[in-house]
Amino acid sequence: MTMVVDAMGGDYAPNAPVEAVSQAAADFTDTRFVVIGDEQQIMAAAKGTIPDNVTLKHTDVVISGDDEPVRAVRRKPNSSLVMAATMVANGEADVMVSAGNTGAIMAAGMLIIGRLPTVERPALAPVLPTFDGKGVLLLDAGATMDASAENLLTYAYMATEYAKHVLDISEPRLGLLNVGTEDSKGNAVVKQAFTLLSESKLNFIGNVEAREMMAGIADVVVCDGFVGNVVLKLAEGIGLGLFSGIKEVLTSDFRSKIAAGLIGGKLKALRKRYDWAEHGGAPFLGVNGGCMKAHGSSNSRAWYMTLAHSRKFVSNDVLEKLTAAMEVRT
Amino acid sequence: MTMVVDAMGGDYAPNAPVEAVSQAAADFTDTRFVVIGDEQQIMAAAKGTIPDNVTLKHTDVVISGDDEPVRAVRRKPNSSLVMAATMVANGEADVMVSAGNTGAIMAAGMLIIGRLPTVERPALAPVLPTFDGKGVLLLDAGATMDASAENLLTYAYMATEYAKHVLDISEPRLGLLNVGTEDSKGNAVVKQAFTLLSESKLNFIGNVEAREMMAGIADVVVCDGFVGNVVLKLAEGIGLGLFSGIKEVLTSDFRSKIAAGLIGGKLKALRKRYDWAEHGGAPFLGVNGGCMKAHGSSNSRAWYMTLAHSRKFVSNDVLEKLTAAMEVRT
Repeated sequence: MTMVVDAMGGDYAPNAPVEAVSQAAADFTDTRFVVIGDEQQIMAAAKGTIPDNVTLKHTDVVISGDDEPVRAVRRKPNSSLVMAATMVANGEADVMVSAGNTGAIMAAGMLIIGRLPTVERPALAPVLPTFDGKGVLLLDAGATMDASAENLLTYAYMATEYAKHVLDISEPRLGLLNVGTEDSKGNAVVKQAFTLLSESKLNFIGNVEAREMMAGIADVVVCDGFVGNVVLKLAEGIGLGLFSGIKEVLTSDFRSKIAAGLIGGKLKALRKRYDWAEHGGAPFLGVNGGCMKAHGSSNSRAWYMTLAHSRKFVSNDVLEKLTAAMEVRT
Repeated sequence: MTMVVDAMGGDYAPNAPVEAVSQAAADFTDTRFVVIGDEQQIMAAAKGTIPDNVTLKHTDVVISGDDEPVRAVRRKPNSSLVMAATMVANGEADVMVSAGNTGAIMAAGMLIIGRLPTVERPALAPVLPTFDGKGVLLLDAGATMDASAENLLTYAYMATEYAKHVLDISEPRLGLLNVGTEDSKGNAVVKQAFTLLSESKLNFIGNVEAREMMAGIADVVVCDGFVGNVVLKLAEGIGLGLFSGIKEVLTSDFRSKIAAGLIGGKLKALRKRYDWAEHGGAPFLGVNGGCMKAHGSSNSRAWYMTLAHSRKFVSNDVLEKLTAAMEVRT
């Protein structure tokens, strides 16, 4: 198996991905890693030592967070991201991983790797942290606007296979994000999706509200990409806002610092439970190959988790399994 | 001016509304209050004393949280909520306030009071707490599913008048909730709404993401009722979840309790900044009369804030002002 890593994306690039690849290369000796990016920076991050099952590919072209995704992917064929996607498209790698510009990763997935013939529109599926510490696979987090009820059904089939074979959840509980739990709730698309999901062979537990979702009532929750993206950014924004408020409280004066000494560890544990980095990356489902997004603020541990999930995506034949599940569906 | 209060809805009914009315009746001597509900319970909550400008109307029929809203409003004409709405419909009161079943309040507003002739579809507009402590008026929070771009424009006009004349914001910054800040972002309805808002005379600051909204970048944010309801429940759910996690940390052992003694006050202040109760009630805009929803978990202070806002809604002729603004629009 070959994994290709865009080492230049994300807040802690290239150190975090390079450290994670070094660890993963030692743990997964059956896997070949290709790391793409600035050779000098990567060698510095690797402290001069590259394991045998790791190959370097040099480029100094990068797609930044400010680049317009589709244009950047078209005009920067020598960027680390596009080179990674091209390797998957050509069959030289089984899965690509990047922590860069989300829009650009989706564009690279769609334009360079292409979509599965059975999937009309792809979906991004990150794990949102929940208060029970388990997390929920939420999709679509913003790949597709104006999804149809049929699209939501496709997401549900794909995500169920991913949750089974990558997240190790034997029978994922599937929920439909809605404004109430009653069967008749929602807008037109969601009501129709409710019917399709109810008639499907999936383990559909019905409508779930955002509050219950955060409490961990479902393993997989499907929604429209507009709603999913708003949910993602809101959850992250509130988490950051509240924890930075707590940090302010704990460092404001001498008494507070004593308190921080007494409970700092426990607050850290609370924060960790609500930390995106613990839950690995987000697959871009519906792409005709492995395409994983690591969280932009991934440290080396988050990167490692994403690499581990990417590896399971390949070794457990998730692409084939979700394609097969899609065929049962129709 | 006459305000009618459904004293039987909400978690702390009838004590919280009755205490708040007693205070408001003392502060606003020009206002007449009608309190509807179980006379015995209300008299007990009022400790036997009712101010001169307060009238009691007895009923023991209540619409509960479990009642199906439209059916309940139709079948329970003698419920405290329907009696309150009927007084507004008949011109016996200028504004009604309830902390009960949100769906039932909306149904009572629509079916009994009716909508403004210039408004196709009404919107619920709560103030969402933001990290700068100011809050943001978010609408629609779930009154209307499948809103059109025209509907969103209507919400923007109504909310701008409400923010000006009730929340005392002289030139409310208006944002459109979106998945990115670039002009071209969003689903079909949101893109069209962007154009309409840009061409309007409103103080439109453009697209806002959920994260920025929580940081307080806008005073008013418009969105579809499906999205708004998800946002509301998610924000509330995360706030509750995190603060209950913090509470657990602070009470877990002896050391934690010492820490709680040192920083409990500051954490309370942080929590208060993120407290819905501080921001008053949510108007149901587009109804042909005053119709205010107090938060379900309102204590007497939150109730008082809602009564104060309801009073300004009437005394500042907000209904007339937003109707006039709607006419300029077309």
